[in-house]
Amino acid sequence: MTELRNDLFLRALRREAVERTPVWIMRQAGRYLPEYREVRRHAGSFMQLCTSPELACKVTMQPLDRFDLDAAILFSDILTIPGAMGLGLDFVEGEGPRFARPVRSKADIDALPLPDPEVELRYVMDAVRLIRSELDGRVPLIGFAGSPWTLATYMVEGGSTATFSLAKQLLYSDPESAHRLLSLLARSVSIYLEAQAAAGAQALMIFDTWGGALTPSAYREFSLAYMSEIVDHLAASKHARDIPVTLFTKGAGSWLKDMAQSGCAALGVDWTVDLGDVRRAVGDQVALQGNMDPAMLYASPTQIREQVSVILQSFGHGNGHIMNLGHGVQPSVDPERVAAFVSAVRELSPAYH
Amino acid sequence: MTELRNDLFLRALRREAVERTPVWIMRQAGRYLPEYREVRRHAGSFMQLCTSPELACKVTMQPLDRFDLDAAILFSDILTIPGAMGLGLDFVEGEGPRFARPVRSKADIDALPLPDPEVELRYVMDAVRLIRSELDGRVPLIGFAGSPWTLATYMVEGGSTATFSLAKQLLYSDPESAHRLLSLLARSVSIYLEAQAAAGAQALMIFDTWGGALTPSAYREFSLAYMSEIVDHLAASKHARDIPVTLFTKGAGSWLKDMAQSGCAALGVDWTVDLGDVRRAVGDQVALQGNMDPAMLYASPTQIREQVSVILQSFGHGNGHIMNLGHGVQPSVDPERVAAFVSAVRELSPAYH
Repeated sequence: MTELRNDLFLRALRREAVERTPVWIMRQAGRYLPEYREVRRHAGSFMQLCTSPELACKVTMQPLDRFDLDAAILFSDILTIPGAMGLGLDFVEGEGPRFARPVRSKADIDALPLPDPEVELRYVMDAVRLIRSELDGRVPLIGFAGSPWTLATYMVEGGSTATFSLAKQLLYSDPESAHRLLSLLARSVSIYLEAQAAAGAQALMIFDTWGGALTPSAYREFSLAYMSEIVDHLAASKHARDIPVTLFTKGAGSWLKDMAQSGCAALGVDWTVDLGDVRRAVGDQVALQGNMDPAMLYASPTQIREQVSVILQSFGHGNGHIMNLGHGVQPSVDPERVAAFVSAVRELSPAYH
Repeated sequence: MTELRNDLFLRALRREAVERTPVWIMRQAGRYLPEYREVRRHAGSFMQLCTSPELACKVTMQPLDRFDLDAAILFSDILTIPGAMGLGLDFVEGEGPRFARPVRSKADIDALPLPDPEVELRYVMDAVRLIRSELDGRVPLIGFAGSPWTLATYMVEGGSTATFSLAKQLLYSDPESAHRLLSLLARSVSIYLEAQAAAGAQALMIFDTWGGALTPSAYREFSLAYMSEIVDHLAASKHARDIPVTLFTKGAGSWLKDMAQSGCAALGVDWTVDLGDVRRAVGDQVALQGNMDPAMLYASPTQIREQVSVILQSFGHGNGHIMNLGHGVQPSVDPERVAAFVSAVRELSPAYH
């Protein structure tokens, strides 16, 4: 493969010296970009966009052509795995994901297949290969998956939820079945991420969007344990052993120290904690990625620049920081504000290295 | 007024010795109770239930007749104040609160009146007086209000929100207007809570449901500062100076120490932190209320009892604990599970005192 011309992001993940803080943005390919909405409109449905390697590649590249970003992230969805398990995934406009056949019983769990990444999820691997070739060494490509717990919430609830009643009912009333489901998901995510690495992903990320809804002990037992299992699998695997893995749990304030023990390379950090506090708490075990409030992108370029400065200062001098938002960019954000964010990082961060 | 026959809750708030850990439940009067749904059906709308002192009193008493609870909480809604400001509050079935005239500009903010608790909110004060008389010294009565920041999110967004785009846009783009709005709300909540104390509330609680959506510094500036202002006002007031105030911010993991400095008597703690860790962090400054995951009430009575034991152990021996859920009881919970929770606290907690 072509030599990587910008390896800032990978060096920061390994906590090596960098000239400036690398920056990328969660959901950098997405609805806030008019060129994305254009492709989305022609694709028909969101699923058609996800399952077409050509279109997924096209929208993955879009933010790189607009902004000076230091990483690309595969355009896909965390629900590809449950989709490939045959639960009947659909995205209802304005409502989010829906599963026609949610997982509600032991029998449902036992009937779940283990999708083959190069068969049922071949379209994702094809997208990874195509994007790597299209990137041609410009920046590294991040592959990703949802965490077992986060996937389980959607599979059990049948879609998004505010209370997690059904998913938590499973954990608290039938922990054995919950563990069987999570264990299958951990195996599935492990081989899926390894396959993405084999197809060309140069960094991997696990999104645990809903881990923060759990108690500390339930988080360790039902979410972190399975993410650690995946990290272990990847570290021992043929294709992903040298690929840095980032764990991101939204609302992980009290557990970031536990997450840092998992063997991952980096932690994604949301905006509800002070990045300097987190750095002091986890020490030099892992790199940290984050953590601007996505809503800050509604403020003026001057205010955005100030906030970038606050975050750089909070992390302080030294290695192991990747700038990002604390969650995905919101669809109603003006792309000019994203440009202001990226420029501010490029201009202000060299002073910290 | 009649002498209070059960003052466990008030003693625990003052961190005095108690024979067992007092217990009450957020949203203990509510949809999970068939007798509540019955009254609600006859009332017509949720607003009609809230604004009728007789019906509010009736549903406030219902959980006390079923369970051995150590406190009553006024049946009302956190949005009474914005409602009284003339924003056109309505509760849409299955969708939550909606304001016909949300607050979107400086002019909107400047036009907001300061409601008189004994005029526009007279129905709340009448409910407090009626409930106190009906309780007749059985247990203490808690009065409450929403925090300025939480009220502002609804007023600006016009209802519930997942992203807080508009409310945060106000904070980040026009902090001066945000402060003007929050300042008015702090004044309004202060006189509202003082009036509830004058009408008979024996403890007060401020619900900051959405403080956890902020960054640490925005939380201190836009939420905690205004709750502290209210606590100060009450401490210096004629009618509320001896009334203990509890602050509850959902998702406050990283800021509980800051909250404890506010002069409040107690902190409500959600289930995402370990109660023992919180106690060690805040020391003996405040009492702690919480912190079982509301979804635990879907588990079996045996599992509920175990979880009660875990929380009692986590807080440990000594004074200053009030058992509660970490958030409101969910509407689909079986009242028998609530009974199991309350009994477990009564049976297991004496060993800790």
